Amino acid sequence: MSPKEFTDYLAKNFQINFSDLDLLKEALTQRNFLNENPKETGRDYQRLEFLGDAIMQASVTEYLFKRYPEWDEGQLTEMRITMVQTKSFAHFAKVIHLNEAIRLGKGEEMSGARERPSLLEDIWEAFIGALFLDQGQKAVDSLLMQTVFSAIDENFFDQFIDFKSRLQEKLQAKGAVDIDYTIEGEERNEDNTQVFKVSVSLDDHILAYGYGSSIKDAEKAAAQQALVDLTE
Amino acid sequence: MSPKEFTDYLAKNFQINFSDLDLLKEALTQRNFLNENPKETGRDYQRLEFLGDAIMQASVTEYLFKRYPEWDEGQLTEMRITMVQTKSFAHFAKVIHLNEAIRLGKGEEMSGARERPSLLEDIWEAFIGALFLDQGQKAVDSLLMQTVFSAIDENFFDQFIDFKSRLQEKLQAKGAVDIDYTIEGEERNEDNTQVFKVSVSLDDHILAYGYGSSIKDAEKAAAQQALVDLTE
Repeated sequence: MSPKEFTDYLAKNFQINFSDLDLLKEALTQRNFLNENPKETGRDYQRLEFLGDAIMQASVTEYLFKRYPEWDEGQLTEMRITMVQTKSFAHFAKVIHLNEAIRLGKGEEMSGARERPSLLEDIWEAFIGALFLDQGQKAVDSLLMQTVFSAIDENFFDQFIDFKSRLQEKLQAKGAVDIDYTIEGEERNEDNTQVFKVSVSLDDHILAYGYGSSIKDAEKAAAQQALVDLTE
Repeated sequence: MSPKEFTDYLAKNFQINFSDLDLLKEALTQRNFLNENPKETGRDYQRLEFLGDAIMQASVTEYLFKRYPEWDEGQLTEMRITMVQTKSFAHFAKVIHLNEAIRLGKGEEMSGARERPSLLEDIWEAFIGALFLDQGQKAVDSLLMQTVFSAIDENFFDQFIDFKSRLQEKLQAKGAVDIDYTIEGEERNEDNTQVFKVSVSLDDHILAYGYGSSIKDAEKAAAQQALVDLTE
């Protein structure tokens, strides 16, 4: 994707129009690209990443604080950890096509860095830093509403939560010990895909059922349902 | 200090006027205070601390990023670590007299919690969170300009920097090994206080001198001077 194609894409899909295109370029520039192109002026993305990392953390914190007025600091912290992590930011970097716009060194390109989660996380943060400097906190919040924050409503972050561990911690805190997962059934959908039904039980008393296309997914779903039931 | 005295103090000295006094109260309330006063409504400071911690981090980050345009992310990170730490925030909590306004449980009061750095840090962050919610980022920046940021110009944070370790790391990175500190002299000021003069040398070549009221302080000053000379 050329710089022009990328800025057009940002404008059309996310209403983002950079005033200082050098700032955007800096956010997209990996160190080896500069080494290989000595005529290039400007820096790599790392300073902007330093800024954007803190801006992301504060933006997510403020959003969660206001969205969940009844949550205590433990619940808020847990949710923030789930949202502010490499896999999450790498995903959103791809959602806005940052991966296609990175100015990457040749060696890095060959080794597949353009799809590497740790680089995508860095570039996401650097991009947020550049957007913050160029357009301010409101523009950052607007982009996050269209990506990271709306993903909460789509249960996007569930995939990063270890519901089985969380259920175990919760039950052990109450003194309980014997948690079992049992396969209760196995069916086939109309399209011939498998569905597993799993129960989770505490001291031989069934807490909840879960369904999934693998036993692992079904167990996770059962643990998640049990947590929901316990919290209500 | 009564709540009224404290709000008057904030208004007079820092131009801070809270609209929502319940928010300020929450930031100043320690958990045991609520346990001991069952008629009290509202929460303790911990949710606001969760918010204020992230706001502090982002505010300091933005300030350093803009103040030191030539610094790389390593230098910026090092300075931020020095500024954003328990001892630092505990100091500034006292500067604005937060310690005198904390609503503390009796047991905590007896055990000296009002002067405990970890509690003062928490209360500082909670106060920043409350100020951010009530008056916005500009009010936070204004307070920080009068406290944390102006302290940079007064070399306040030097006390938290281990200049001897930093010099050693810098010289070792260049392959050097034999760093020595030598007492070069000892004098008395007119007021009869002692002053030590210490040199720091690398492979028998003197890099810099330092002065201090203890040998330790003089060594630190010598290391700091050597670092300045090396950077120039």
